[in-house]
Amino acid sequence: MNIVIIGLGVIGGGYAMALREAGYTEVYGVDSNITTLEKAKVLGIIKEGCLTGESVIPKADLVILAVYPDLVKEFIRNNIKLFKDGLIITDVTGIKEPFIEEVTEILPENIDFVFGHPMAGREKKGIDYATNTVFKGANYLITVTPKNKEENIELIQELAYKMGFKKVKKISPKYHDEMIAFTSQLPHALAVALINSDIEGRDTGSFIGDSYRELTRIANINERLWSELFLGNKNNLIVSIENFQRELESIKECIKNDNKDELEKLFVKSTKRRENL
Amino acid sequence: MNIVIIGLGVIGGGYAMALREAGYTEVYGVDSNITTLEKAKVLGIIKEGCLTGESVIPKADLVILAVYPDLVKEFIRNNIKLFKDGLIITDVTGIKEPFIEEVTEILPENIDFVFGHPMAGREKKGIDYATNTVFKGANYLITVTPKNKEENIELIQELAYKMGFKKVKKISPKYHDEMIAFTSQLPHALAVALINSDIEGRDTGSFIGDSYRELTRIANINERLWSELFLGNKNNLIVSIENFQRELESIKECIKNDNKDELEKLFVKSTKRRENL
Repeated sequence: MNIVIIGLGVIGGGYAMALREAGYTEVYGVDSNITTLEKAKVLGIIKEGCLTGESVIPKADLVILAVYPDLVKEFIRNNIKLFKDGLIITDVTGIKEPFIEEVTEILPENIDFVFGHPMAGREKKGIDYATNTVFKGANYLITVTPKNKEENIELIQELAYKMGFKKVKKISPKYHDEMIAFTSQLPHALAVALINSDIEGRDTGSFIGDSYRELTRIANINERLWSELFLGNKNNLIVSIENFQRELESIKECIKNDNKDELEKLFVKSTKRRENL
Repeated sequence: MNIVIIGLGVIGGGYAMALREAGYTEVYGVDSNITTLEKAKVLGIIKEGCLTGESVIPKADLVILAVYPDLVKEFIRNNIKLFKDGLIITDVTGIKEPFIEEVTEILPENIDFVFGHPMAGREKKGIDYATNTVFKGANYLITVTPKNKEENIELIQELAYKMGFKKVKKISPKYHDEMIAFTSQLPHALAVALINSDIEGRDTGSFIGDSYRELTRIANINERLWSELFLGNKNNLIVSIENFQRELESIKECIKNDNKDELEKLFVKSTKRRENL
């Protein structure tokens, strides 16, 4: 199987590593950065790298789009004539419902786009931070559309397992976006708000333990990518933020009213939920 | 130096391990749980264990109180006649200002209580989860009072370094509580509110990545200890929660108004702060 990865950044580069480890040898990379292509070649994770797709896309059986969400449509428009009949495309985008609608509109009938979401990543960008270890044991989501062929969904599922993902779940784009707003985008919003709420000029570093370190790791955030993800899933994310705000307000009320019993109940609830996770 | 640790739970047990590794051999443990004492003896981290302090406290040069904050005063009241002249006491309590005032009131003149706060711990309780690895590279805070003798502060500082702490900072109880509300109690409040804001019955586990896992680790929380810490530092914690609420509201407003530029600015700010940490 000929695989072409578009974008060899922290995710695309990690995919190339995972595919090499899984035994795939016909993996090609397309990236607009020549240094990135050279690094990928030196690492031995691609057979060949190109600045544009003309020479490699026509022979692709599978194209993996590891680019910013708003570049996916652009890529399809610009390369539509290079796709061979029966090509499978997949992606790594963190939001799905409106995104899938837009992409499906411009997609030729003979191309099957199986939308995927690897639930793993790193806060840094670029091939220098790429690694496939983050995928090992991680969740992988497939958001199924009515146009997808069963055998192609199976192929993407198998590929995810071979790359090291532990659990592959098939769900609707709508449910995906609802859940991701809560499990991924909300934590990022909290991390950003936490570190931004610090008072300027304090020697905070001397007062932190593991909890602050962990809760702010993802406050180091790719602003272009995450502003797209936040705005692309705005309704779900606002619901998640507001559910969270109500819970935080409950805690604050307990503190204000010296309500130890109620506070302990909230802690017992959170402990039980965390243990069940 | 004879050291008596009161309470061989997750922190007191960890201290005993750290002291053994640092070469201290005259370390005694007092715990009301006989099984805990037996385990500590089998681990070789105490020379002797006792259910009450009568036999070991009189020979102590240093008493380390690793018990719940509200038991510290009780301990002093009940054991005051056993303290030898010049005894040094230290603690591991996560809040200081009102706590220190209360303790100092009942403390005899010839006893020096050097209040300490190891910025490390685990979400679980009990000796089975005790380890000294959490202290390695961690912060240690000493909240100095006017009654403390310089040589005793030095002794506690040296002890912290020998136990593996990387940085010891001496500060006022007031500043300690302000900072800890932000770096420790607020993250715990956020973790609890995050997991409690999940909608009951969803298969959340299939949709999580590292970020949700990290942000909720401390939602597994000792309800007795943390309700004491929250209520014992209520004014500072409410300020920290409200500063956080304003930042989260700013993010929500950006999302509601599709204000990508402003959202990116908040992300750039948080990234810079995290990198400087």
